[in-house]
Amino acid sequence: MSKIIDITELCLRDAHQSLLATRMALEDMVPACADIDQAGYWSVECWGGATFDACIRFLNEDPWERLRTFRRLLPNSRLQMLLRGQNLLGYRHYEDGVVDRFVDKAAENGMDVFRVFDALNDIRNIRQSVNAVRRNGKHAQGTICYTVSPLHTTETFIEMAERLVELGCDSICLKDMAALLKPQPAYDIVKGIKDRCGQDVRVHVHTHATTGVTLVSLMKAIEAGADGVDTAISSLSLGPGHNPTESLVEMLEGTGYEARLNKACLHRIKDHFAGLRPRYQAFMSNIHGVETDIFDSQIPGGMISNMESQLKQQNAADRLQEVMVEVPRVREDAGFPPLVTPSSQIVGTQAVFNVLMGRYKVISSEFADLMLGYYGKAPGERDPQVLAQSAQQAHKEAIEVRPADLLQPEWATLEAAAAALPGTDGSEEDVLTYAMFPQVATDFFATRAQGPKNLGRDPLAPAKPGEPAAGPPPLTTPVTYDVRLNGRSHRVSVAPVSE
Amino acid sequence: MSKIIDITELCLRDAHQSLLATRMALEDMVPACADIDQAGYWSVECWGGATFDACIRFLNEDPWERLRTFRRLLPNSRLQMLLRGQNLLGYRHYEDGVVDRFVDKAAENGMDVFRVFDALNDIRNIRQSVNAVRRNGKHAQGTICYTVSPLHTTETFIEMAERLVELGCDSICLKDMAALLKPQPAYDIVKGIKDRCGQDVRVHVHTHATTGVTLVSLMKAIEAGADGVDTAISSLSLGPGHNPTESLVEMLEGTGYEARLNKACLHRIKDHFAGLRPRYQAFMSNIHGVETDIFDSQIPGGMISNMESQLKQQNAADRLQEVMVEVPRVREDAGFPPLVTPSSQIVGTQAVFNVLMGRYKVISSEFADLMLGYYGKAPGERDPQVLAQSAQQAHKEAIEVRPADLLQPEWATLEAAAAALPGTDGSEEDVLTYAMFPQVATDFFATRAQGPKNLGRDPLAPAKPGEPAAGPPPLTTPVTYDVRLNGRSHRVSVAPVSE
Repeated sequence: MSKIIDITELCLRDAHQSLLATRMALEDMVPACADIDQAGYWSVECWGGATFDACIRFLNEDPWERLRTFRRLLPNSRLQMLLRGQNLLGYRHYEDGVVDRFVDKAAENGMDVFRVFDALNDIRNIRQSVNAVRRNGKHAQGTICYTVSPLHTTETFIEMAERLVELGCDSICLKDMAALLKPQPAYDIVKGIKDRCGQDVRVHVHTHATTGVTLVSLMKAIEAGADGVDTAISSLSLGPGHNPTESLVEMLEGTGYEARLNKACLHRIKDHFAGLRPRYQAFMSNIHGVETDIFDSQIPGGMISNMESQLKQQNAADRLQEVMVEVPRVREDAGFPPLVTPSSQIVGTQAVFNVLMGRYKVISSEFADLMLGYYGKAPGERDPQVLAQSAQQAHKEAIEVRPADLLQPEWATLEAAAAALPGTDGSEEDVLTYAMFPQVATDFFATRAQGPKNLGRDPLAPAKPGEPAAGPPPLTTPVTYDVRLNGRSHRVSVAPVSE
Repeated sequence: MSKIIDITELCLRDAHQSLLATRMALEDMVPACADIDQAGYWSVECWGGATFDACIRFLNEDPWERLRTFRRLLPNSRLQMLLRGQNLLGYRHYEDGVVDRFVDKAAENGMDVFRVFDALNDIRNIRQSVNAVRRNGKHAQGTICYTVSPLHTTETFIEMAERLVELGCDSICLKDMAALLKPQPAYDIVKGIKDRCGQDVRVHVHTHATTGVTLVSLMKAIEAGADGVDTAISSLSLGPGHNPTESLVEMLEGTGYEARLNKACLHRIKDHFAGLRPRYQAFMSNIHGVETDIFDSQIPGGMISNMESQLKQQNAADRLQEVMVEVPRVREDAGFPPLVTPSSQIVGTQAVFNVLMGRYKVISSEFADLMLGYYGKAPGERDPQVLAQSAQQAHKEAIEVRPADLLQPEWATLEAAAAALPGTDGSEEDVLTYAMFPQVATDFFATRAQGPKNLGRDPLAPAKPGEPAAGPPPLTTPVTYDVRLNGRSHRVSVAPVSE
């Protein structure tokens, strides 16, 4: 008797987020749903921050309606989402009441499995969401962001798993968003968690394929006792995406492990997305094959291209090497946060500032917040001098408490603000949409009646007037700073990398 | 202390053969040689049948001069070649004297490691080459072609390894040319060989990446005791090519195994070929990502595209599915030969014939030879009726002896024929070039003085007058048949897939 390995299929969320800049329209996913529902997946990841954002920013699609559609079309499947803990699907901390309402509404609209993470691995930022998920009787998957630093040992990850179990999580996810997880650490961490927390504690492993080694890491994680792994159908896999579902299935033959998926379904899902992919050519990642440089630089590929574009805007593209050297220093100053949304953007932008304007001459308000504890507790010690400079420049004190503890109830304010917008329907879902992305939601509500836009119809047609269709796709949430130094103005734009 | 895993780098032979239709010019490899020589590889594969053929057919390059150049530029490296046993680098059986002279000359020009295989795994076809290699004091690597069939069990592969060791091979290669080798069989076969033949018998594993699982297979082979594995630098890897060298190196970290390669050298080799690859766009394989269908069909991807093109020439492209169903039947009738050059072409073409003209109504002379034992002994029983039909149509008897035993000494004849050609230099190397590809060599000798052509210079320029530059590259050794059936003429072209 083989042990069944549970598969989470990523094609409806992280796969197209990683490969097609999150641009896939719901109507292009619908034809695959019957097969996805019958394939035998443990869960189907289909919702998260970037997909929510892209729905209202680019696709004129109501993300809640997308969720309800998946619920209807995938009646036999666990729907899964990625939740940024206290940040929900946005980029700031929300007060606990908003967290509760968001989780309630997601559950009510059909979500089953909530994979909850915090960019700093600060468990205090995960707690409220996990409690809300459990109160709704849904599956709370506590998440460890895998990263590499002098402070991140196998033991620290095992300890975090212990704390997630204590929190009441139904399962643990080891999340390797940058394809840094090598086979031996994968084995050691999963084995360590199982040994420490008990063999019956479910462990899922999420990896990206970028570095080419992580299918081996999944094999070793499975040998160490992992219960589930994430994969994407082959036609939406590899590069900055994930390992192919079909390869995972075949890999296990004869090993004593088995992913009991329906091959005929997989074949049809593959064919569907293979046919679709060329239509999204304009949004396609230009990373192909594998890239192992990140093992040395520890800077995710998406973060590099982001910093490149910031430098280009400053006519300083030639200074990328300096920035690459600066990133690990900034990361160390900040106490070695994992580099994932939003810490990757914050650290990357500060490194650009440091190179262009001198070390910490200008500190972004986000970096100051990161230093001062407003994103949560950093894994390690922060540099005292940079901490002092941050407090001084930001006119703020460092905090030790959970950031959301400082927030006042905000639901009534959000509700009132949303209600005043043209095009809102008065639902709590609309309030939540507004809460996540106030400006983008405002625009979306006004145009919602026009119905969804499919950017994959014709790769040559501009997505919207003035927006170039070909070339690198627009970033998801750009923020532009005007920085003046010695009388000279610098425009620096910050945008998310990926999560 | 970690066990050192020896790496054979494929970028100078199989990698560009698999990804760029073997078109890479020597001058484009030269700038990478200093780093390749210093990287710490166990060996550098750089010569084989398709590269030899492409040199004289497309590049107006003397393959022996290419070998001497590698020898000069890679003074610290073992040079490695792939040798088709009694077929040498051609498509027919050569008499033993020619085999001896070929190996002598290859050794004299600088070859160190001879990987010797036979498409039917008939060890009698390997013996003469192995003996010649050993007589020259070079490394003879006896090769097992991995395939999947009801007859090919772990035990049969282990037994073949035993016979190769008895033959005096210096090492064993498990060669998975179709990316069919899954992790568990990789482990079982390598472990079985080590247990049966002794831990000190060197085992190397060669895989392709097509199905996405074989890096895991290499990991399991290493755990089972494999001493060496084949990889290609990342910028010439994946798809129908091989697993990336850099990923293999990173994969092993902390496992107790180590590929002690110089990362700075790898980086420069990668950058070199990354820059080069776009210039060969016109020849690039259109297989990207992974393809796991072959696990069910057991028909290599290259073979399918070959059969597709045969069917198209007959205006019968719609009958591919029938041919796909026919291939395994033909293979079974022939006693389950592995599908590798030349058996893959022979079986594929016969399947096309069977679908277009009725089962075995027309038998190609090559298929008749395969049935009748003129390529060697098939792994299993052949269908008696098809055997009889083959004998009848070919006017030949089945044989049981080693095919080369029926050949008369032919060196003097070859020498005389070569000497008569305009442009020959009277060397034994020229005689051997002529022996391998008589017609192509004749043309090459006549144009050799014009010097090498680099087809990668400008992807839009035609390679030679009348030859389209873009689109699928010309096949390497096309043979065209005129088949008349019921008064209707059929032109059927047969060409190699890959090896």
